[in-house]
Amino acid sequence: MSTAVPPKQREQIVVIGADAAGMSAAHQALRSAKSAGRDIDVIALEKTSDTSYSACGIPYLVSGTVGTTDELSARTPEKHRATGVDLRMNVTATKIDLNTRTVAYAHNAGGEEFVRFDKLVLATGAHPIIPEWAVTDGGELVGGVHPVKDLDHARHWLDLVSRRSRGELAVRRRAVVVGGGYIGVEMAEAMVQRGFSTTLLTRSAVMSNLDSDMSERVCETVRAGGVDAVTNTTVADIDIDSVDGHVRSLTGSNGQVYPTDVVVLGLGVRPSTELGVAAGLPIGERGGYLPNERQEVAEGVWAAGDCCEVIDRIRRKYVLAPLGTHANKQGRICGYNTVGGSHEFPGVLGTAITRFVSAGTHVEVARTGLGTREAAEAGYDVESLVTLGGTASGYMPERSPIATKIIADRRTRRLLGVQIVGGAQSAKRIDTAAAVLWGEMSVDDLAAMDLSYAPPFATVWEAIQLAARRLSDRM
Amino acid sequence: MSTAVPPKQREQIVVIGADAAGMSAAHQALRSAKSAGRDIDVIALEKTSDTSYSACGIPYLVSGTVGTTDELSARTPEKHRATGVDLRMNVTATKIDLNTRTVAYAHNAGGEEFVRFDKLVLATGAHPIIPEWAVTDGGELVGGVHPVKDLDHARHWLDLVSRRSRGELAVRRRAVVVGGGYIGVEMAEAMVQRGFSTTLLTRSAVMSNLDSDMSERVCETVRAGGVDAVTNTTVADIDIDSVDGHVRSLTGSNGQVYPTDVVVLGLGVRPSTELGVAAGLPIGERGGYLPNERQEVAEGVWAAGDCCEVIDRIRRKYVLAPLGTHANKQGRICGYNTVGGSHEFPGVLGTAITRFVSAGTHVEVARTGLGTREAAEAGYDVESLVTLGGTASGYMPERSPIATKIIADRRTRRLLGVQIVGGAQSAKRIDTAAAVLWGEMSVDDLAAMDLSYAPPFATVWEAIQLAARRLSDRM
Repeated sequence: MSTAVPPKQREQIVVIGADAAGMSAAHQALRSAKSAGRDIDVIALEKTSDTSYSACGIPYLVSGTVGTTDELSARTPEKHRATGVDLRMNVTATKIDLNTRTVAYAHNAGGEEFVRFDKLVLATGAHPIIPEWAVTDGGELVGGVHPVKDLDHARHWLDLVSRRSRGELAVRRRAVVVGGGYIGVEMAEAMVQRGFSTTLLTRSAVMSNLDSDMSERVCETVRAGGVDAVTNTTVADIDIDSVDGHVRSLTGSNGQVYPTDVVVLGLGVRPSTELGVAAGLPIGERGGYLPNERQEVAEGVWAAGDCCEVIDRIRRKYVLAPLGTHANKQGRICGYNTVGGSHEFPGVLGTAITRFVSAGTHVEVARTGLGTREAAEAGYDVESLVTLGGTASGYMPERSPIATKIIADRRTRRLLGVQIVGGAQSAKRIDTAAAVLWGEMSVDDLAAMDLSYAPPFATVWEAIQLAARRLSDRM
Repeated sequence: MSTAVPPKQREQIVVIGADAAGMSAAHQALRSAKSAGRDIDVIALEKTSDTSYSACGIPYLVSGTVGTTDELSARTPEKHRATGVDLRMNVTATKIDLNTRTVAYAHNAGGEEFVRFDKLVLATGAHPIIPEWAVTDGGELVGGVHPVKDLDHARHWLDLVSRRSRGELAVRRRAVVVGGGYIGVEMAEAMVQRGFSTTLLTRSAVMSNLDSDMSERVCETVRAGGVDAVTNTTVADIDIDSVDGHVRSLTGSNGQVYPTDVVVLGLGVRPSTELGVAAGLPIGERGGYLPNERQEVAEGVWAAGDCCEVIDRIRRKYVLAPLGTHANKQGRICGYNTVGGSHEFPGVLGTAITRFVSAGTHVEVARTGLGTREAAEAGYDVESLVTLGGTASGYMPERSPIATKIIADRRTRRLLGVQIVGGAQSAKRIDTAAAVLWGEMSVDDLAAMDLSYAPPFATVWEAIQLAARRLSDRM
């Protein structure tokens, strides 16, 4: 009689979603296991035919700044496989069973399979928000109306704008961008650069995550750059060509009709959590998973990236911050923790940056921390001001203007937030403010600290320090 | 018999030196007095005919980037007077008497005067270091040899380079810059841009305040930009034309002869403290006044700017850091404190930045905190690495390379220093590191913090965070 022990199964980590968060997790798990001398299997399931692409780069692809879709891919499936990930492409996870520890998935080409997991990482990302008016009765997007989220969208947009440049659709020359956030402004830039007569419709302001005195500055430059920015306006109706099903115009809530050939949906995203919800995982009021500081959402289950809510470090509450930089950091933390690590994601500040460049106009926009309204709602005794300065000494040709808004708490003098709107080389200064917020330092610290000065790079009182000094004096 | 009380004398503040530190003090004193409802007199003594000029801008004036000397003046004497400063130009303070509370000063045109002070601010700046070989037996500078410190030097250099461009001195076409620090590199750029065949002689490295693995990167680009950079070489001898007294060549300690038409002295500065020393004020081993945290050097006497030593925040010891940005901050603190304030200067980190642009070459250089040698000497258990990254996403045309050196303490994981050498838009990132140092945060904090990301501005792991993450992993 044989008494052989059955061979011990290797530990199996399943990752759902092979973009930034998922693949950071997969690779970190493999690296950590390797350095611990352990053998593990990492299986990643991806429903599209793309891995690890830069969604943030899509507007620059559409504008023609970036030459090919391939350039937006940080790593091809082959490269991921070469490092040991069992990457299964074009398969859609359909069910997670937390009791049997299995994930069911369907091949997009047909056929279903199951995979066992010891550890599971959810990196399912987010869906672009699609308004009702953009969808036909048949559940399809209206012709010419499209979001900007993944590489398939990118290919669609490239096709649209290139067709036009080849003159095949010579009538396609007007674009409406719906949404005035980062993607809206970046896509407006792209459409203008492609020669489209472009309207930007936004329900509040252009860059409404800035205070209104700062977002107005952005709005002005975007208009100067050739975009017809229409604020405080939603889409009330859409007119569709009954013959080819293509959009003909949008009607705004202001009653105005905007004839157009294409419509960019830049309305943001919502966390993609259907799988987890069906498996019984809790989600937050903003629709995302609610990971603890180790990015764990259940025993042996982690989540990372756009499918998660994240902790705002200042307000100590969950918020949405769907950005690649967080996805990468969180994915890495999941990777460590699936193989026994205890790494923590320390939360976000709401730092963000973008620019709009068109027709001699160059505006850079950045923010970190709380806006004045957020700060007041969080119970702070808010003091703020806007200061105008320059990115270089007044006598240097590269000097560009920079408007800095600074927000602090009068009681503790703690810095709460900074917003920047300025010319070339202005916005990356936001990182200095972010570091000050990270260290929970005061507006006096920011005013006093030893920042770099030389004529091509700054004024002798660095622009954001000038703002801090003035606010410090006023408080 | 009259019993009239003599009219009470208004409080009198005397400031010696009317550049950044002195005039910041003068104006802040007036503002503070005004807001306290007090009347004071502020008298400023200036030995030159210039006030509040940007010494840092001189290389850009010499290069032709800045059009006129006037552009380097932040405020004219008239503007200072308009705000209430009793500004006395072209007078040299000759003696301070701390017992009688008087300053003696001589009009440069002849004649001596005394002025009483209740409070005194020393803002006498620094002298350029002039080596013995550069001085004739008569005590004059050798013809064609000149430092780069004040606007008179600037005028001299402008005259020299413009004369050449007008063809009046067609043989003047070679320059030797002695000194490889900030001013040396900036003047080498200026001379190359003016068409001079330029040699840079430095006793150690080009930018020796960087670690050698970083300064070598600078040296390479400076050479690629057309400067013959000669390292580890001092000046052994000078050959002077016996007819016109003009320099003909320098001989290096390497035995090499460098024929030249002009010599730029970029050897740094030493604090100008003769007046205070004669009055009995103590100075430090680096030759500067030793102010306390309120910038006070004796009862009722303050000092600010390049004439002072400053506290290094990390090592808690006096160092020299002759920079306009400190002079402005310290001057302002003196101004507050002369009228009863108790403001403190919190010390420096050694943050500095520059660039070298020539012939298609663009290198930016920055540092903050301690170098590896300084950190080791201060007793830290030093860990460091250099990481290569980019200033923008790989697919963006504006991406330039960035080498980041990061230095931390293995025991506490505290960040100790960061050095950057890179292309356009790389160096100002140093401010983020400076903020981390200011808050005494760790290398893990820097790796984890929420810094801004968008394709034109950064990689998804921001360059300095990538360095921090790698060092964090290694420690």
